[in-house]
Amino acid sequence: MLDRLREILGAANVLTGKDMDPFACDWSGAPQGTPLAVLRPGSTADVAAILKLANESRTPVVPMSGNTCLSGATAAEGAWVVSMARMNKIREIRPTGRIAIVEAGAILANIHDAVAEHDLIFPLFFGARGSAMIGGALSTNAGGSNVLRYGNTRDLCLGIEAVLPDGEVIDLMRQLHKDNSGYDLRHLLIGAEGTLGIITAAVIKLFPAPLANATAMVAVPRVGDALELLNRLQQETGGAVQAFEYMPRAYIETHLLQTKDARPPFDERHDVNIMVEVGATAPRDAVPDANGQIPIAAHLESVLADLFEEGAILDAVVAQNETQRREMWERREAAAQVMTYQTPHVDRDIAVPVDRMQEFLDQVAQIIADLDPGAQDVSVAHLGDGNLHLGVFPTRDDEDLCQRIGDLAEDAAVALGGSFSAEHGIGWRKRPAMARHKNPGAMAAMRTIKTALDPNGILNPGKVLPDI
Amino acid sequence: MLDRLREILGAANVLTGKDMDPFACDWSGAPQGTPLAVLRPGSTADVAAILKLANESRTPVVPMSGNTCLSGATAAEGAWVVSMARMNKIREIRPTGRIAIVEAGAILANIHDAVAEHDLIFPLFFGARGSAMIGGALSTNAGGSNVLRYGNTRDLCLGIEAVLPDGEVIDLMRQLHKDNSGYDLRHLLIGAEGTLGIITAAVIKLFPAPLANATAMVAVPRVGDALELLNRLQQETGGAVQAFEYMPRAYIETHLLQTKDARPPFDERHDVNIMVEVGATAPRDAVPDANGQIPIAAHLESVLADLFEEGAILDAVVAQNETQRREMWERREAAAQVMTYQTPHVDRDIAVPVDRMQEFLDQVAQIIADLDPGAQDVSVAHLGDGNLHLGVFPTRDDEDLCQRIGDLAEDAAVALGGSFSAEHGIGWRKRPAMARHKNPGAMAAMRTIKTALDPNGILNPGKVLPDI
Repeated sequence: MLDRLREILGAANVLTGKDMDPFACDWSGAPQGTPLAVLRPGSTADVAAILKLANESRTPVVPMSGNTCLSGATAAEGAWVVSMARMNKIREIRPTGRIAIVEAGAILANIHDAVAEHDLIFPLFFGARGSAMIGGALSTNAGGSNVLRYGNTRDLCLGIEAVLPDGEVIDLMRQLHKDNSGYDLRHLLIGAEGTLGIITAAVIKLFPAPLANATAMVAVPRVGDALELLNRLQQETGGAVQAFEYMPRAYIETHLLQTKDARPPFDERHDVNIMVEVGATAPRDAVPDANGQIPIAAHLESVLADLFEEGAILDAVVAQNETQRREMWERREAAAQVMTYQTPHVDRDIAVPVDRMQEFLDQVAQIIADLDPGAQDVSVAHLGDGNLHLGVFPTRDDEDLCQRIGDLAEDAAVALGGSFSAEHGIGWRKRPAMARHKNPGAMAAMRTIKTALDPNGILNPGKVLPDI
Repeated sequence: MLDRLREILGAANVLTGKDMDPFACDWSGAPQGTPLAVLRPGSTADVAAILKLANESRTPVVPMSGNTCLSGATAAEGAWVVSMARMNKIREIRPTGRIAIVEAGAILANIHDAVAEHDLIFPLFFGARGSAMIGGALSTNAGGSNVLRYGNTRDLCLGIEAVLPDGEVIDLMRQLHKDNSGYDLRHLLIGAEGTLGIITAAVIKLFPAPLANATAMVAVPRVGDALELLNRLQQETGGAVQAFEYMPRAYIETHLLQTKDARPPFDERHDVNIMVEVGATAPRDAVPDANGQIPIAAHLESVLADLFEEGAILDAVVAQNETQRREMWERREAAAQVMTYQTPHVDRDIAVPVDRMQEFLDQVAQIIADLDPGAQDVSVAHLGDGNLHLGVFPTRDDEDLCQRIGDLAEDAAVALGGSFSAEHGIGWRKRPAMARHKNPGAMAAMRTIKTALDPNGILNPGKVLPDI
């Protein structure tokens, strides 16, 4: 079989033995099973040939892009890893049409750089953008810090090309904003974590780059008050809020402990700290006035001053220059380090309706008070999306306690109409939560679809669905 | 069987004979087959009971909402029509969370009115909004005149509840902006035209109502120039363009012929007439200045003045009051009448990439020049979406000629990366186009999904898929 693959792909693109090491662990370096081989297709036809062979021989296949997944979707024990890294071309940028056509292995940061030359952005930004690839971002419907303004990855994609488990290529590379021609297979494959097909290329949407940003740290009495702040800012700026991030007191303190030279956001400590950023795409909001003031920043300051007058906010600091803005973002982007500062810890990716976040946090506080009153809540949230990365440091070294706090918090989120998986996906790690919480009718339909499209179960087996 | 249905639904909700007449024709009154019965469920449980019975007895079922479909998706010869009209409640409006929870039979205009009380909009606007229901809008992924700013129906929906062909209810009524928990069944059911399940309820997104609108008619040399105008306006207003509609010279002239008291948009006639509207959601753009000028309107005027100076536009008229704005919208919304002014005529719902519209129109002009040089092009387009409703009046009474012009235009659109069905869906009328143009791999996958979820083929048979 490997000989056949070498014929198809070239010997250099069929890795075995030690060469597979980088593909046998997750992004953190933790081992996650030994593949049978690592295959490096150079074209869609290569991917189709691999899947035909796999399907005939019933060989499991695990697609892999940048391998920055947080839920184990790329674990590949006994499977062929299909690495998309060679299919990394940005085939076309059409500035006037506001689209780019990219291959699945194109790295996000490379896409960002390429479109920046046209004063455009592809607004999918998250910490791993230097290695994450668009194919993986699509397969997991990645989120990040700009979802509030631009949507999730699925909202940024007009078309895809993908190979189904039988090797059939589906070409849905439409560059269209409207295309009602049958079932939306694009949306079915996006977020399916490589269990229904391998995405090989995509048409993505581009947007004008903001001409100026205004960033601030704001303290409010309670998280529930923050929604009013968000709605007010959206209203006053005409929907220009592009980040709205929550950090509690313990997060701020852990960050200070951990980070040399870090400064607190305010002179006083506050329980509820919000980082807000508005972006100006219109020149009149971005061009400095006679006093050198940038209108969008002046506008943000005046809204915050009004809210302070009204007693709706406790404190606010607007970044006066790019250095101060960077400092705010670095504090937020340190989340991966802050939330793993202590081990063991709770780490869950939760969503609740935006207007129920306070209720959810009250319930989490109660869960902590019941199980481990001294535990610290270091959660961080894309608050504008209702997406909380629940982080808790217990007072004792107790994995079971962490598990229990996390499970009860998930239960509470689901009971409020929320989700146990907001943006990180299911992989294999969250299959128990999937089994516990997902609507049974929906689970049955997913199973039916998986079995119909992949009757031999070759594509990323053991992922997403708890029992297939 | 009907007795069993009367037991479940109550006798008054099982219509037969003459009572079925309103359900046996399309919106225009044209007959489209005689149903076996018309069933009027009052709850999701009713819908589930109906589908269980239908599945056991292999009875075809056609879901029907407002019945304003343009492609025959509700034709119900020999089937049970399931009318969603009784399930018309707006269950909840949550202004702070910017969502509403509605039943499938809620009429769009009623939703509009209900949310307007909270200064919010549900931005799905099209001509039939007074009778179209949200369930049908979701099932067809309806478009309309505000897609440019707010997206298609699928983009306006956070969650759905639906009943599958076997009577299983899937509850995906999430009020979430992020929920990566398995395959996106919501997007699969949206746009499936009732062939995979019956949508019974939905969570929909709401937006702040614009505080002021500025509307203008603009003439540009060629359609290709209009994209530059659009991008420039988006840039200058920070993405506030909410309608960008194209009408050619023959459309304007037909409208004048047809409509008593109608006035031309400009003193001179132009080939390319664009109606543009920008909406201000921020108070600073909407509150009149000392001279009584509304900033968003002043801003639109100044952008247009600059473009006129540059020679990028030929003429422009900004509406000075609501009456003038109404006049502009009425001209555009008369499309259904204008485009059927003459019979026979070509009428196709086409999409092309926005930056290829000029190329497409050049090809259409060539097709007309080849086949019927005197024919008039009365097309109208949601130009910002790349969505053209192709309308052509031939010089002679010749159905075959119309068919041929339409087919060649569809071929041209598809060859440019476009679609033969932008927003009207497939129903039964466009199944030949589906067979001719849709990617074979995608067709095969759709067939597999349909057969897996609806093995007895009871749900809206003969629609969407050409051969099932």
